[in-house]
Parts: sequence; C-alpha cells; structure tokens
Amino acid sequence: MRIEQRPEFQIHLQNLKSKEQLYLETIFSVANGHFGVRDSNPLQGNNPNYRGTPGLFINGFYDYYEIQYGEKYTGYPVNDQVINRLCDPRYIRIKIGDEDSSVNYFKVDTVDKNMDMQTGMLHEIFSVTTPQGKIFNLIVESFASVEAANVYGIKYGIVPINFDDEVEVIKVHDYVNQKTSSTVSDVRVNESQGHLQLDFLDGYEQPSYLLTTYKSQQGSLLTFNGSGPKLTYFKDENNHWGYHATYFGKKGTQKEFEFLFSIGAVYPLVNAQMYADQYLVKLNEDIKNTSFKSELMASAQVWQTFWLHSDVEIDGDPEVQLSLRFNLFELYQSAGKDSHTSIPAKGLSGNGYGGHYFWDTEIFMLPFFIYTNPELAKKILMYRYETLSVAEQQSTQFGFKGGAMYPWRSINGVEASAYWPAGTAQIHIDADIAYAIEQYYEVTGDDDFLDNYGYEIIVETARFYMEWGNFAKINDQRRFVINRVTGPDEYSAVVDNNYFTNKMVKFNFRMVQKYAKRFENTELSKRLGLSPKELNRIKEAADLMYLPFDNEKKVKLQDQNFKQMNKLDLSKIDNNDFPLLLHYHPLMLYRSQVNKQADTILADVLFPSGYSEDELMRDFDFYEPITTHDSSLSQAVFAIAAARVGKQDQSYNFFSQAIQTDILNSHHNTANGIHAGSLGAAWEGVFYGFAGVINNAGTFTMNPKLPARWNSVKFRIFLYDSEYIFTIYEHEVHVSLLSGTGTTITIAGAKCDLDNESPEQVVKY
Amino acid sequence: MRIEQRPEFQIHLQNLKSKEQLYLETIFSVANGHFGVRDSNPLQGNNPNYRGTPGLFINGFYDYYEIQYGEKYTGYPVNDQVINRLCDPRYIRIKIGDEDSSVNYFKVDTVDKNMDMQTGMLHEIFSVTTPQGKIFNLIVESFASVEAANVYGIKYGIVPINFDDEVEVIKVHDYVNQKTSSTVSDVRVNESQGHLQLDFLDGYEQPSYLLTTYKSQQGSLLTFNGSGPKLTYFKDENNHWGYHATYFGKKGTQKEFEFLFSIGAVYPLVNAQMYADQYLVKLNEDIKNTSFKSELMASAQVWQTFWLHSDVEIDGDPEVQLSLRFNLFELYQSAGKDSHTSIPAKGLSGNGYGGHYFWDTEIFMLPFFIYTNPELAKKILMYRYETLSVAEQQSTQFGFKGGAMYPWRSINGVEASAYWPAGTAQIHIDADIAYAIEQYYEVTGDDDFLDNYGYEIIVETARFYMEWGNFAKINDQRRFVINRVTGPDEYSAVVDNNYFTNKMVKFNFRMVQKYAKRFENTELSKRLGLSPKELNRIKEAADLMYLPFDNEKKVKLQDQNFKQMNKLDLSKIDNNDFPLLLHYHPLMLYRSQVNKQADTILADVLFPSGYSEDELMRDFDFYEPITTHDSSLSQAVFAIAAARVGKQDQSYNFFSQAIQTDILNSHHNTANGIHAGSLGAAWEGVFYGFAGVINNAGTFTMNPKLPARWNSVKFRIFLYDSEYIFTIYEHEVHVSLLSGTGTTITIAGAKCDLDNESPEQVVKY
Repeated sequence: MRIEQRPEFQIHLQNLKSKEQLYLETIFSVANGHFGVRDSNPLQGNNPNYRGTPGLFINGFYDYYEIQYGEKYTGYPVNDQVINRLCDPRYIRIKIGDEDSSVNYFKVDTVDKNMDMQTGMLHEIFSVTTPQGKIFNLIVESFASVEAANVYGIKYGIVPINFDDEVEVIKVHDYVNQKTSSTVSDVRVNESQGHLQLDFLDGYEQPSYLLTTYKSQQGSLLTFNGSGPKLTYFKDENNHWGYHATYFGKKGTQKEFEFLFSIGAVYPLVNAQMYADQYLVKLNEDIKNTSFKSELMASAQVWQTFWLHSDVEIDGDPEVQLSLRFNLFELYQSAGKDSHTSIPAKGLSGNGYGGHYFWDTEIFMLPFFIYTNPELAKKILMYRYETLSVAEQQSTQFGFKGGAMYPWRSINGVEASAYWPAGTAQIHIDADIAYAIEQYYEVTGDDDFLDNYGYEIIVETARFYMEWGNFAKINDQRRFVINRVTGPDEYSAVVDNNYFTNKMVKFNFRMVQKYAKRFENTELSKRLGLSPKELNRIKEAADLMYLPFDNEKKVKLQDQNFKQMNKLDLSKIDNNDFPLLLHYHPLMLYRSQVNKQADTILADVLFPSGYSEDELMRDFDFYEPITTHDSSLSQAVFAIAAARVGKQDQSYNFFSQAIQTDILNSHHNTANGIHAGSLGAAWEGVFYGFAGVINNAGTFTMNPKLPARWNSVKFRIFLYDSEYIFTIYEHEVHVSLLSGTGTTITIAGAKCDLDNESPEQVVKY
Repeated sequence: MRIEQRPEFQIHLQNLKSKEQLYLETIFSVANGHFGVRDSNPLQGNNPNYRGTPGLFINGFYDYYEIQYGEKYTGYPVNDQVINRLCDPRYIRIKIGDEDSSVNYFKVDTVDKNMDMQTGMLHEIFSVTTPQGKIFNLIVESFASVEAANVYGIKYGIVPINFDDEVEVIKVHDYVNQKTSSTVSDVRVNESQGHLQLDFLDGYEQPSYLLTTYKSQQGSLLTFNGSGPKLTYFKDENNHWGYHATYFGKKGTQKEFEFLFSIGAVYPLVNAQMYADQYLVKLNEDIKNTSFKSELMASAQVWQTFWLHSDVEIDGDPEVQLSLRFNLFELYQSAGKDSHTSIPAKGLSGNGYGGHYFWDTEIFMLPFFIYTNPELAKKILMYRYETLSVAEQQSTQFGFKGGAMYPWRSINGVEASAYWPAGTAQIHIDADIAYAIEQYYEVTGDDDFLDNYGYEIIVETARFYMEWGNFAKINDQRRFVINRVTGPDEYSAVVDNNYFTNKMVKFNFRMVQKYAKRFENTELSKRLGLSPKELNRIKEAADLMYLPFDNEKKVKLQDQNFKQMNKLDLSKIDNNDFPLLLHYHPLMLYRSQVNKQADTILADVLFPSGYSEDELMRDFDFYEPITTHDSSLSQAVFAIAAARVGKQDQSYNFFSQAIQTDILNSHHNTANGIHAGSLGAAWEGVFYGFAGVINNAGTFTMNPKLPARWNSVKFRIFLYDSEYIFTIYEHEVHVSLLSGTGTTITIAGAKCDLDNESPEQVVKY
C-alpha cells in the first residue's frame, strides 16, 4: 500500500501560528486511545533544563494522591487520581565522538514537523549541533498504532552534516517522571506526577519493564525491540538493558534505527506481577516478526477506514476543513477502545485534568462516534456500565437509599473532584450519561446494549435523582425540585433548579417510563425491584418537573433565582481579565449573571423539539451577551443554537472559533493537552448546526443551513444498520444509502425512503 | 486583704463529671485576655508520651501557614493564621536523688484541682511517684494577673512523703512546641503549631527570651524570676539560663518555690529585635520588688471589682449558678483588653479555631461587656476599627469599588477561612459588627466612639453591602436582594436572601441614615465622601430590602428558597450521627431543611420589636424541630426565643444546656478550648431571656419571665453613666440606681425614673 500525502490531511509546523514548545508537544502527540506520546524533544528527556513535559500516558493508568483541603468535610474525596507520566519512548541518546547527548545536551533545532493524519504518522526533522559544533540531522518518524493497540513505533535517521566521526546510538529507558518545568498556577491543570516504580525484568530477549504504582496498586508492562545497522542488545553503564550501535558516521550518509514498543494493558498490581511472564509473551508477539513499516501500514489502513466513514469534507473553507480533520483525528486518537476506559478530557496528549473523564465524553464527543463508529461508541458507554457499582456505592455513602451517583470527574469511577461546588454538585453527569445511552440506542437500535446495560443505568440514575430531588410547592403549584446543584455553567454554583439539570433529569425519568413496558416482568426488572409504585412516582416527578421560566422576558431561566442576580457588565472588564475564573473570587462570579459556558442554551440544543424559533431566539439573545466562553465547550454549542435561529454569520463565527480551539491555542492552555470535548463539540457544530440534524425517537430530520462561504459539506453516518452519505449544497442535499436496508429520513421537510432499489435522492431546499 | 473561699465560686475537680485530661487542661486554664496558660501536667512537658497539649498562648501572636487547597481559585486566602503555642510556664524539672523527672518521667497523679474564681487562682495538688518508688506531693498555685496584663505567677510546693533525699528543682524553658498527641480528625480544630524561634538573650539578671515567628514576622519577649530556698540563677547543661535549687528534702517538710513571668506584648519582628532591651526593662519592672502573693492579691482585687459589677446571682439553682459564674469568669479571662486584640472563639484556653476571632465576639460576647464593663467593650470594638483598612482593601481586592469586607475569621484582619461557603460567604459579619457598634452606643452614649470610629465602620460596611447586593424584581416587586451568601446556619450555604443577613444589613443601612444628619458637613463625612445621592440609595435599599416570608405558614423563611428544601427527618437519624457535619457531605445538609444553629430565630432575638408574639411563636415552632444545635451558639438563642413566647420550661431546658456547654463538655470538644461565644450567649439567655430585656433606640425595657425553679436573679448593669442593680423575683422586680444620674427604664410596663433622690423602686408584675 502506498498512501499519497494529501495536503488537506497534513498538520504542518509551518501552518501553525504558535511555535511554543509545550503547545507543539500537545499538537503533535500521537495516540491510539490506549496510550499517547507527547511530542518531546527526543534528545533532552533527562536534561534538567529541558522546558518540556515529555511523557507516555496509558489511558486508565493512574496513581492516587491525597487531596489537601484547608478544611476537609465529611464525604470529600480522599484521593485525586492522576494519570501516570511514564518513560518517554521518544528518548534516545546519541554520542558523536567524545560528546554525549545525555551529558552535554546537544542543541536541537526543529527543522520541520508534519503530522500525516491519513496514516497517523508524525514526521520530524531536527538539526542537532553538539557543543563542539558537530552538526547532524535527526529525522524521526513515529506513530501509535490504531491497528494493534499496544504498538508504538519510532524510527530515527541520523545524517552527519559537517563531520565524519564515531557515532553511537543508545536506546535505554532508565528514567521515569521527567521533570516538568511548568510553573503555571492554573486550577485547571493537575501537574502531579506518578510515583511510579519501574522494574527491569531480567531474562528476556529485549528490554522489559514492569511499571507499578504505589497507591493505586496498578501495574502494566512494556517492552521494546529495535533494528538497525550494528544494533545490538546490551547493558549500559547503569546495568540497564537496551540497544546500542556504534558505527563510523559519514558526512551526508543516513543511518536508520527503528524501534517498536509494545505497551501493555493496565492490571491490578498483583496480577501484573504474578503474570508478568505471560503478559510479556503476548506483548512481544505484537512486535516480533514485523517491522516499523508494516506496523505503520497496518495502522494506516485502519486510519483509512476511519476517514472513509468519519471524514467531513468541506468545499470552500480550507482552514476550517483542516481544523475539523485535526479534531476528528484527535478524537479517534483519544478514545479508549477497550470497554474499560473512556476519553480523557485532554485526550492522551497531556495530563491536564489528571487524565480524568468528565461529561465531555457523553455530551460532546460521543455523538460523533455514535453516528460514525457505533461499535466504538458502545465500548465508550460500557465504561459507565463497568463503573455502575461504584456509582451505586457512592449514592449510598452519600446517604441515599439507592440509585447511582456517577462522579463528576474520575478515572476509576470514584469521585476525584476536590472542589464540590464545581464538582460533585454537577449532578447532571448522571442524566448526561442516560441521555447518551438513549441517543446511542435511538441511532443504533442496539437492543443488546439497552437490555443488558443501558436500562439499568437509566433506572439507577433516575433513582438517584428521586433521592436528591423532592416535591415542593413553587408559586403555589406542586413541583419536583432539584436543589443545591451546579449546572454546566461553572460561573454559577450551588443553585436551585438549574434549568439544564432539571430538563435532563426529566428526560432521564421519561426514559425509565418509556422502556418500563419493555422490561416489565423481565429478569432485569425483578433484579432492580422496579415496582409500579416507583414507576408512578418517577412519572409524577417527570410530569411535575420544575423548569424555571421568566414570564416577563419569556426566556428560560438558568436557575430559579438567576433573574435576580447582579448584572456583570462584560464590556467593562479588561480583556486581560479573561478567563474570569483566574481573576475573580468564585463568589464574585456566582453572584452575577455571567456564564462561563452554554448552560440553558445547551438544553435548547440537546432538546431541539417543542420550542418555537422565537423562543430559541429569545434564549439566545438573553444568554449570548452574558457568556464569556471561558470554557472551550461553549462556542460550538452557541454555533448550533445560532444556526437553528438563523443567525448564520454568528453561527459561523462561533463555529470557526470553536473548531480551532487547539489549532489556534485560543484558550492558551493547549500545552496541557487538547480540549477533547471542544473537538467533539465542533463536529456537533457541523452536524447539528449547519446540517441541522435532529434525531428524536427514531425520526431523523435534517434542515441544513450552510455557512455562506461553504460550497458544500459531505459526510457519512450510520443509522441503524444503514450507512448514508450526505452532500449538502447551498440549496440541495444529495443523499445516498451506502449499505443496509435504509430507514425513513426527512430532509428539509421531504421524506426520503431510500433502499437498495433506489439508494439516491436529491432534495432541494 | 484576705479573701474567704466561697464555695459558689469554686470550680472543683470533684464536681466535674469528666476527668479527661485534655478537657481539664482547658477548664483549668488561667488567662487574662493577653495570654492564657493551659493546665498542663507540670512535670511532663517534654515527655514525648505525654498525651496533653500544654501551651502558653499570647492573644494575637500567630504565625502563618499556607492553606492547602485541592483546587485553589482566585481570591482564596493564601495563609491561615494560627495562634502560637509557646513554651509552657508551668513546666518544672525535679530531681530526687539520682532520678530526673525530665528523663525518667515520674508518674503524676492528680489529687485535687480547684479554681477559685474570686481570685483567679488555680490550686492543685499532685502526688508524684518516681520510678524507684519515691513519693512526693507537688502543690501548684498559679494565676494570670488581671491587674498586670504581663504577669503570670506560679508557685510549687514540694513535700517528700516516703523518703529523705537530695532534691533539685530546676526551672529552665529550653523547648517550644510541645508535641501534641491529638489525633482528632475534626474540621473545627486547627492543630497546626507555631514555627517559633526562641532565643535566649544574654546579659540579663534573669532568663529572657525573644520569641519570633518565621512567616508572620512577629516578636514578643518573655522573662521570669524566681525565689525560694537556695534558688539561684544558673546555666543548665544545655547552656540555658534558669533557676535551680538543691537541698536535702525531708519527709513531710514542704519547700516552696515561686516564679513570676512577665509576658510581653506582640510587636512587629523588627521592633521586637531592635528594642528588646527596652522592652525587657519594662517587663522586668512588672515582676521586680514584688512577690507571687502580692501580685496574686492585686489581681484578686480586680477580680473582686469584676464580680461586683458583673456577677449574676441566682437563688435556687446552684448548678446553673456555678456554671454561669464559670462562663462569666472565662469571658473576662478571654477578652483582649489592649484595643489591639479581640476575643478568640476558644478564648486563650486552647488553639481550636487557630485563635481566630469570629462574629462570636460581637454578637454573643460583647453584650455582657457592654452592660457590665463598657470600657472593655469599647476596647474590643476598637479591634475592628484597627482592622478597618484591611477590610477596605479586601473589599477592593474582591472587585468592589469601595466598602469594607471584614473577614469571617482572622487574627490580623485578613480573611483566613479555608472554606468559603461557610467562611467568606458569611458576609453578615460586617452587619454583626455594625449591630454591635449601635448596641454599644445605645447603652453607653459614647459619642467619642461613634464620632471617631463607629460611624465610619457603619458606613463602610453598608457600602460593602450596596456593592454585594442589587436591586431586582421579586414577585414583580422591586427589592434589594443579597444573593449567594451563607447565614449563621452552617447547614445551609450559598443561598439567596438569607433572612438574618438581610435583616441585619437593613439595620446597618438604617444606622447610616439614622446618623447621617449628625455627620452632615463634618470632616468625617467629607473624608468618607458620603453624598446625598449615596444616602438616598442606601435608604432605598433599606426600604426595599427583601425579607423572605412564607405567606402560607406565616413564618419568616431562612432564605428565599428554604421552603422548597428537602425535609430531613431528624428523628430517624442515629444519635451517634450528630453533629451532622461530621457524618454527612455538606450537600446532603445544604439540600435539607435542617439547621446547625439558630438563624432566623437569632434575627427574632436580635430584633425583638415589631413582631407579634404569635409570629415569634410560629417561627419558633417551625425552626425548633429542624435545629440540631450542633453549634454551641444555638441553644442559648433558642432559650431567649422560648422565653419571649412564654415557653418557660423549654426555655429553661435550652438555657441550662447552653450554660453548661463547657462544664459538661456537651459538644465533646472542650479539650480544644472553651466555647467563648456559647459562654457569652448564656449570659444573654439570662439577660434577654429570663430578665426579658429589650434595649431599643434608648428605651430600656424589662419583661421578666423567671424560670420556675429560681427564687430570684440579681445583677447589675450600666446604662449611660448610671449603674443599676436589679433583683427579679417571681412577681416583682427590685431596682436601685447605684451611681449616675439615672435614665428612664420600663419594667413590666411600668416606667421607672430613678434618680439620686429616689434611687429604689419595686415593680410588681
């Protein structure tokens, strides 16, 4: 297979506005959902003056850190969970004559970097100068295989430029926990590093490591092999196994050395220790009798399949096109694919937010996978089922009789939020998960998932809300209220009846009802002990759910008392004071009508039916001016909302900013990792915004509103067993059924019943 | 002077129900407002196995500790302030033959302890057994002088019981920061200890120390002298100066050694260092040419004066009588008397709450001093004026244009609360201070204070609230609202329009208005820049202040949404699960109608006018069943409220529990220090509750409701320049004017215009 490098799939250093090192380490990280490798300087890994944050991260491999509280109250999480920063597989040691890169720290200049998103290969050229002035080029190719989850490949080419001399190449990983230079004081960053132990295991034909954590009691294994001229297995001066080659380098002559790493799964510590041999045998198999090139090609083929089903082709907007591809590429790089892990908020490109999973996955990233890769979407949802029992325990520990209390942020399912007003209080996480399950089921019709996993989550989350909320009189009417919560907007906290939360919970309750008949008298229903009385009470709660509304302005109220909050005049705030959370005490923000991110507007976007365009317009006009978009999850949502109410220009502006969050480093913190939720939200901008898709209870409709500058946008999606391809032009939509039996879809009001007989249709609008 | 030991003024070990060591260390601590000394085991101070928490605390002498936050947001306090635990002046080293108490750790049994509250002297007898079985009695007398603030006296008597042997007495203080054994995990305790440096200063005739803190950059000085048979100044084996005496002890023969400490003020570090000589000269003067006995007598005389004006004599309830005396005694022991310090929440009897001052001072302790010792009350209020500029800075830093934001808890005026929802959010502290100023002025008519200090505070606190609050529509009516605050009840937090807060702020606004005319065109008014426009706006805010009310139940609502909160059924909660804060996540409590302490009821108590008894009754009946009294500030307030609505038995029950908070250790944490606020609140129970005093804008009224078991209660108070004595019997009140020109007072509806001509009256009721 020979893949032509198409420029519209290349992230090229020259096209990036920022050349800041930590930013580039994130942007050019390679990952496959199991692990990620930051784009470190390969010669500087153990240089104490190196300002980078190199690292290999394994999804779900974390250690515990005791959280420090000024005042610690009952029920606070004891431990934070922080993804481990492992030894950097990019690191290499090179000696030229009597100079040693690990001692003399050669000067490394980046000549070029390019990420080919078609193949997932990162290609780099460095110009290296030794202290004595010897210059050589270092060409590095690397990838994280999406075909074999354990495999990471890296190839080094060395070309002496101005000398002939003895060259020694040494590849030994005898360090972990590279120093990071970050001096950022930013509450959103968690720079704690893993207290890892790295043990060399003797008796193998290649360097083999056992990685174990101290407090979380996890273990993983790692091994690597190499090939290249004169490359031999050896022990270095520290008695560590690795590879080295010594040869006489000649000006202009390139020598290549390639290494394949096999990076194991995460096990309980005791298993990792006891079965290390068995695991290593399997890990070795992945990189035996193969080569950098064949592994790369195998992976590239999977990337091809990914792009085939998942690409979004925009005609007329090359910048946005490239950004969108980057986003989709990163989403796929970040997504855990083993049913035990989810998608960290920063992908596997950094340890911002400690490698935790948030609601970002279910609300902002999952839709992309549901429509383009439903098998993967299912695996991601399975993580929530795997941690259901933990969520159930948490609900009981909190003081409730039952239900499941999912954590606001976590790796292993246990709440790891150190600040409950913007953590544990965001109880909408439960309903976010239930919403995602329903969305998945609506698009896939996957009965297996609903019957064996999904409905149980829907019931247990609903039960949690029945415990948290209560019936009470509001304006003399009996209502179901949900007090003392925090909605998505983190510039408000500990409010009563957050509209978004209540709306989501109502939906959660409705789901219990909707499927109650289906599960009547089933084993599941018996096991859950779901009685008609309980179902009635849930129905009553849904019927009476309080949804705060301003009768004067006729807008939805973010929460019950939102209307009476102080108006914060954003126009009077200095530009340097954004994001506000870094410049104001929480109480200054909580007191005010000011939003960090879409909250009520997100409810409008997630529940597009049942509201008139006028009402959506009023909501938009009310919330848009008070929203700072200090969260990267905000603009894409506003883009969708704007598209729906026909504010095309505003929509495009929001979208084009949202989609470039990381590429433009617009939140100034891409250094800590990509904004995976934002990347997913950008796809939602195209799909729900410009394509105008609404998918409700089995009816798929599309009401496109193409940005003025776009000639067309083309994408594929799966609906049930069928795959469709859509091309949306300014005034018409071309749709084809690619596979499957087809289902009814509605485009711009026109019903399209495509089938294998007539698989294509053009709808004018 | 010879003071007869009256039993009703003795706190005697035998009469205490708990003999737990840490509890006794608190109960028998001696203090004078400048410093306090816990009742440690005098021989065990440097024994690592000693389970006590010995300590000398100087009011206002603290060090900083960086507060650790799991997630640290903008504007959070950087440092906690923790009162320093200094070297224990009770410590003594005794050698018997070849046994050394500082090495062999003699066994010390308490034979007796007695605090004579008439003189402030603590008298103790210990029976000490050496490892070799030698037994001697150790008799210790000690006091903190209320006559000379620097002076602490301690006298040791040694009586060999079963041996004749060489005895050596050594008094050297060469250690600080005694180990504490506390393993309590209680958010209300701050067990951090001072990083003190203790320097011996050479060249003095007695041991002299410079005490300096590392981070807060404070310093103090301390010196002591001794006298006794063969006692000489010497250097010990560690080269530290002190005193020792060697003599041959004979069975049954007592030798006495007495020491006077002079404990300096708190200075900026650089002053303490630079002027150490001068300060020491003065400190020495306090203990030169005097003796333990004469210092004790001088102090006892001040105590006599204290009891003369401040005692409350109850006939018919000896247990309550003794507890009440203990409370008043502790209040006077705890109160800072130098205008630079206030009253720590735990007095100077322990370092619970870090030695911080809270609203406890102004709302719960100050009334006792205002009525019985107005000069001292003024000094305590001066602390707030001294820290006004810090409060002004805090308001500006928070983001406001002006105003003063007093700290919820602090020593030096800077907010030291590590948990803002139950700290900084309790913005009622500002109005609490303004309320206390008005109360002080109403009782004393002290124009100097109002003109030069008080009004400025009233204005700046009002300005703060004008910034925090805003006008908004509530139920279609324009109102002034105060959102996102926490009222006194710490089982609710971050609420909107807390009734108590709004009522207090309204009062604060009204005070600005009330005195506006008085200050019109004054220098002060010009300096403050108080314009008619601003005054009008403050008036408008007061007029429109929103005070949430339940129109159905006709009760005041603790906050705007309180009615819709979940009902927590206290009867279903296990007794071991109180206090709830140690067993439930904050959100479990905040979601519920459950009170830690009086909140709305406190508003009823502080503003007794204008409400019908029916309304007060309804409030009481609504809030009483949902209040856990997990705060020690609660029961006394309920006692007053109950008395006012004629629930005499309930009132007495609340009162008798409140008054014994520390004596009975009913909150199980007296070990960390007394509950000074609770002690003061108990006096309020007598005064505002049973005596039924209401003092509003110059009209003093009394409507007594004596507990059934009391024959009478007798007390004195000051009103303006006059002192009165009241004796309240079941159906009559005897009142006499003791000094001053008299003012109009109303007793049970009858006006009493006492003057020097007719200074006595009997009113029947």
